[in-house]
Amino acid sequence: MRELDTDRFLADLHALRRIGAYRSGVHRPTYSAEDMEARRWLVAELSAIGLDAAMDGIGSVFGRQRTGGPCLLVGSHLETQNHAGWLDGALGVVAGLALARAGLAVDVVAFADEEGHYGSFLGSRSAIGLLEEAEIDRARNRYHGTPLRDALAAAGLAGVPRQRLDPARYRGFLELHVEQGTQLESAGHRVGVVTGIVAIWQYRIVIEGMQDHAGGTTMAERKDAGLTAVRLLARVDREFPMLCGPRTVWTCGRIALEPGAPSIIPGRAEVLFQMRDLDVEVLRRMETCLERIVQEMNRTERTRTTLEAMSRSQPTPCDPALQDALAAAAERHAPGQWQRLPSGGGHDAQYMARVMPSAMLFAPSIGGISHHWSEDTKEEDLVLALRVLADAAAAVLAR
Amino acid sequence: MRELDTDRFLADLHALRRIGAYRSGVHRPTYSAEDMEARRWLVAELSAIGLDAAMDGIGSVFGRQRTGGPCLLVGSHLETQNHAGWLDGALGVVAGLALARAGLAVDVVAFADEEGHYGSFLGSRSAIGLLEEAEIDRARNRYHGTPLRDALAAAGLAGVPRQRLDPARYRGFLELHVEQGTQLESAGHRVGVVTGIVAIWQYRIVIEGMQDHAGGTTMAERKDAGLTAVRLLARVDREFPMLCGPRTVWTCGRIALEPGAPSIIPGRAEVLFQMRDLDVEVLRRMETCLERIVQEMNRTERTRTTLEAMSRSQPTPCDPALQDALAAAAERHAPGQWQRLPSGGGHDAQYMARVMPSAMLFAPSIGGISHHWSEDTKEEDLVLALRVLADAAAAVLAR
Repeated sequence: MRELDTDRFLADLHALRRIGAYRSGVHRPTYSAEDMEARRWLVAELSAIGLDAAMDGIGSVFGRQRTGGPCLLVGSHLETQNHAGWLDGALGVVAGLALARAGLAVDVVAFADEEGHYGSFLGSRSAIGLLEEAEIDRARNRYHGTPLRDALAAAGLAGVPRQRLDPARYRGFLELHVEQGTQLESAGHRVGVVTGIVAIWQYRIVIEGMQDHAGGTTMAERKDAGLTAVRLLARVDREFPMLCGPRTVWTCGRIALEPGAPSIIPGRAEVLFQMRDLDVEVLRRMETCLERIVQEMNRTERTRTTLEAMSRSQPTPCDPALQDALAAAAERHAPGQWQRLPSGGGHDAQYMARVMPSAMLFAPSIGGISHHWSEDTKEEDLVLALRVLADAAAAVLAR
Repeated sequence: MRELDTDRFLADLHALRRIGAYRSGVHRPTYSAEDMEARRWLVAELSAIGLDAAMDGIGSVFGRQRTGGPCLLVGSHLETQNHAGWLDGALGVVAGLALARAGLAVDVVAFADEEGHYGSFLGSRSAIGLLEEAEIDRARNRYHGTPLRDALAAAGLAGVPRQRLDPARYRGFLELHVEQGTQLESAGHRVGVVTGIVAIWQYRIVIEGMQDHAGGTTMAERKDAGLTAVRLLARVDREFPMLCGPRTVWTCGRIALEPGAPSIIPGRAEVLFQMRDLDVEVLRRMETCLERIVQEMNRTERTRTTLEAMSRSQPTPCDPALQDALAAAAERHAPGQWQRLPSGGGHDAQYMARVMPSAMLFAPSIGGISHHWSEDTKEEDLVLALRVLADAAAAVLAR
């Protein structure tokens, strides 16, 4: 391994930051002109250091070592949420580039659409054979409805074959990412070794009442779907703290009342609710509680509530040996200034973990801010995380 | 007074129902082609029975008796909410037409835009001098944003003068309307004498938190604007029943969480809240409670909540003498089958009451349904309400 070029690493991050720059962040939605420019930039950088680099039919960029022998896969994604941060995704890709540039036996990858503009983890699922053509046919942009096929064609990817990873080639997958939370910052820690990626269980709660005039209908007569939603969520707010684990989170991200007018009693409410934990037993306990609350609402309210589980993902524990390699490197570079922690967010690593040992390293997020243009991390923490990642990768490759 | 032609009354209602028919209701938004057709239909019907009829510059239709002497003003509105009922508004206008046709000294009016497509009670406010040109310049359609001036021009009303009512001409204003509630139906009553139109106090509650990733932010760190909204509304739900009057109503018609995505902690919530009562003291008490709940939220939650009063209308008691005339007629035609009740909804009568004695009569709404195409009332109840209105009008005019 040659000396890590940390200046070049930071310069590369800033170069990417200029592609689709929005205030201090970036706006690089999947398959947009800016996103494609970033992908082409990566292909060029990977080629320049001698890797066999190309973009595949779903937009993922792969840079492969031309020599044989065991290697590691290192990367993340390049597209961003709308008007979002400069590090989410880009950090892991540029870290892979830096490791390859330092001469480590590392293949670099940028998986397409981790951010879900068109689907769910299109790139990482495609790379392990979990994305059917039929799903690509059906998928549309979640914001503007453009069919995925049209977006791929406009990006020049129609007819380009998709690449499948060969797990036998790799000792494992490493993904460096910003924490997107404040656990590291709150503890005064500079780097985090991820224990696993939490399971996410998502629900749609639909409440059917009776739309009525807000002046003409007495309180006793009402079948107010919005009021049931409030009562149900207030009940969750009281009950869940008694059932949750130390790091469980639950979120109601949307309450849509129909028709949503000031003088009309809502006839229908739709609530999006999710909960996350590494421990499936905790999630089962909370789901049972949620079901019981819905049952009670149907006994006590004059509305009809239904609970629909939209998805129940499995937790993804990080590979213990890779975790330990990262932990040993963290302790070398930042003694007493690192910790282990779960990832509350989903990452490409959760799909890589299905086919090879996978692990993640977190750099602290200033103020925990992510999915916002003001997302940031201190440059010395970015450099520290790169050093930890490189050391761990070298140790794994040296085994 | 000649014999009331109740068949013609029902036929006229059905004729209007065909203009903009939508399923069993009508879709006649203000100044739409269908709405203008309905207004022209009314001008023609009023002219045919000898009244001096015309549409004014805001779209209101006035039909005036050509003889002098004291008379009553009877009417309501012709436009509808979107895809709404056939009786809301039309009933009161067609009742005025029937009374005039029976030879009663009645002027007939159809006030424009009671339903608020472009503003708030444009027609009735214009008729009493409470609508400035500057407000017309500013107003836009609440659904599609078309400027009111453009809509008036397209309807052929640009440059047409607006008519101002001369209160000295009238003994009072009578408005027959559907109840839009189920108080009459629940009590087994066939007609209702309105005691007054409730005051409506409306609020916008804005909660500012911090938008964050739902996976990366622990429960303890969150500043969840949506959760504060739920806690605030649950608190209102517990406290208000202890403070309200027998007929107070309160409604949360909208809870908008931003950005409204399943995996993002809402950084901002906007809640539309309103309460209605005939008694301003009750509303003051509830407003004080709401203010205290907001204060408490600002002490206990990690979010910032602001309460903005958007409007505080005054209650409009109906004229006691006109009420008594209606009550006497109701007891003659439907002994034991009528009651007095407040109107929970706003009506043109609340503006007429500012310049002349005004009163309202309610016909029962089947199932209380209104502002929906399935709105309906039994034909025998429509006819009964017309007879009560005509009798009361005759008694008032005979004084």
